[in-house]
Amino acid sequence: MTRDALVFYSPVDDPRAWKEALTSELPDLDFRVDPDVGDPATIDYALVWVPPTGFFQRFPNLKLVTNLGAGVDRLVRRDDLVPVPISRLSDPGMVALMTSYVVFAVTRYARDIHIFERAQRRGEWHYVHPRPLFEIKVGVLGLGELGAPAAQTLAGMGFDVRGWSRTQKDLPGVACSAGPEALDNLLASCEIVVSLLPLTPESRGMLGARELALMPKGAKFINASRSAVVDEAALVAALRSGAIGEATLDVFDIEPLPADHPYWTLDNVLITPHLASITVPALAARDVAESIKRVRRGEPPLHAVDAHRGY
Amino acid sequence: MTRDALVFYSPVDDPRAWKEALTSELPDLDFRVDPDVGDPATIDYALVWVPPTGFFQRFPNLKLVTNLGAGVDRLVRRDDLVPVPISRLSDPGMVALMTSYVVFAVTRYARDIHIFERAQRRGEWHYVHPRPLFEIKVGVLGLGELGAPAAQTLAGMGFDVRGWSRTQKDLPGVACSAGPEALDNLLASCEIVVSLLPLTPESRGMLGARELALMPKGAKFINASRSAVVDEAALVAALRSGAIGEATLDVFDIEPLPADHPYWTLDNVLITPHLASITVPALAARDVAESIKRVRRGEPPLHAVDAHRGY
Repeated sequence: MTRDALVFYSPVDDPRAWKEALTSELPDLDFRVDPDVGDPATIDYALVWVPPTGFFQRFPNLKLVTNLGAGVDRLVRRDDLVPVPISRLSDPGMVALMTSYVVFAVTRYARDIHIFERAQRRGEWHYVHPRPLFEIKVGVLGLGELGAPAAQTLAGMGFDVRGWSRTQKDLPGVACSAGPEALDNLLASCEIVVSLLPLTPESRGMLGARELALMPKGAKFINASRSAVVDEAALVAALRSGAIGEATLDVFDIEPLPADHPYWTLDNVLITPHLASITVPALAARDVAESIKRVRRGEPPLHAVDAHRGY
Repeated sequence: MTRDALVFYSPVDDPRAWKEALTSELPDLDFRVDPDVGDPATIDYALVWVPPTGFFQRFPNLKLVTNLGAGVDRLVRRDDLVPVPISRLSDPGMVALMTSYVVFAVTRYARDIHIFERAQRRGEWHYVHPRPLFEIKVGVLGLGELGAPAAQTLAGMGFDVRGWSRTQKDLPGVACSAGPEALDNLLASCEIVVSLLPLTPESRGMLGARELALMPKGAKFINASRSAVVDEAALVAALRSGAIGEATLDVFDIEPLPADHPYWTLDNVLITPHLASITVPALAARDVAESIKRVRRGEPPLHAVDAHRGY
């Protein structure tokens, strides 16, 4: 009997960490790192992040593609996918990192830290009376595997949290709504808005000039999902005019952010280099192994992706 | 029958907000704001923040002193206290604010935001691979009404949290220890240390040059309790040398922080103007009312303070 074989491809993830984590879960798995794949016909599974065009066609007996991340927009929009089950990562380390990023960014604004940072640069002791957290309305767009825990953690800390998603969700402590009209209402009522939306054909450009203008003057915007859900030019204009008061941005239309991008010159933008959430192999490997076991038994993998729906 | 009367004194708290909050709990209470106290002999209760020397002696029939804050060090070290029960505030709004401050400060370091802030000032996209939160050891000194919830919230977010207090505590998810030797061990093992210590004769100067030197090189220190638990000159020296890499400080030996204080010139210090936690009257009033009811019945108040112990 031959061993199952997996091909790994990623320009950013560490193959050794993944090999160690995954083969500790599946000692019988033959873990191969592209381009050292041996006979392509012996490859059963692909664990990949943005592989080159035609990658999947090289492996005629592929049974499962696992995306090395939670966001699959760069995978499902390809026209060279093969008709095998697609799975994405969902690991508790990734959830913890995203929640910590969102909590940091929201709390920085809620506690007026951006004001104190500026006062400190002027050498000024500038007191601002804190407001109780329950008076601070925070909107979370996207209530999936990353959005839901972030929203609930904020609610647990005492914020007034409103959540929005494409389909109605029910989260304890979070006022949930769904649909286009509810989105307008949420934007108009929240002084801090966090995007954790997946990038899909529907969400692309969802936050344009019209939507940004709905937010209260001086509102804060946090994007830790995908840049393309926002009209970047409209956001720059809103930040320049002060219509949007502050932004914390982890994602950009072009990354690394070009040296001449206007964000670099805006004092009211905090730029982080796309790392709000990353995969921790030691934590994510268990689910990847479980998906392989399920596919071996002829069952669907964990965290299956509907390529048509887009997530 | 005459109504019970309370005298309010505070240079910083809003008497109207307190009157509204407290009389909605106790409609029969006669709420008087110093100096409009009427006949001092009719005053039963005092709700105060740092009243002038001799204040308490003016009221011969005082039955309860309630401190307008959680930290009572400025009250219990007075030599003009009168022998009546002392209570301090404990309100969920204050706890939520303190937890949010601590979570903000810890997460800012854990997510390398201070590094990205500096890179942004240079116009640089500077990627630092995030570490999983469970690898980040955070020490919380002081596990009282503010320290315990902060430590537990950090643990719930996924940090490796170690707590220290004068007497042994037991908090789910937090590795608790007590006593001088355990303090040294905690300081030596944690890359982020948060002080939420009450200021007592024992804790005054507890973190001196020796203790700061125990922390790992480049460690981060957060003080949201009282400045006097730390040797400020030793902390300045450690921050200058880089022995302590970063600090977030809400409290200072002299406040407002003097314009010529070295902290203003240190790039690795984040200064906030003593507002990590404040009292929210609408939330704190219920406990104050309950303490008054208990004293009316001859019982001890809530959150009773042992003036001898100091907290």
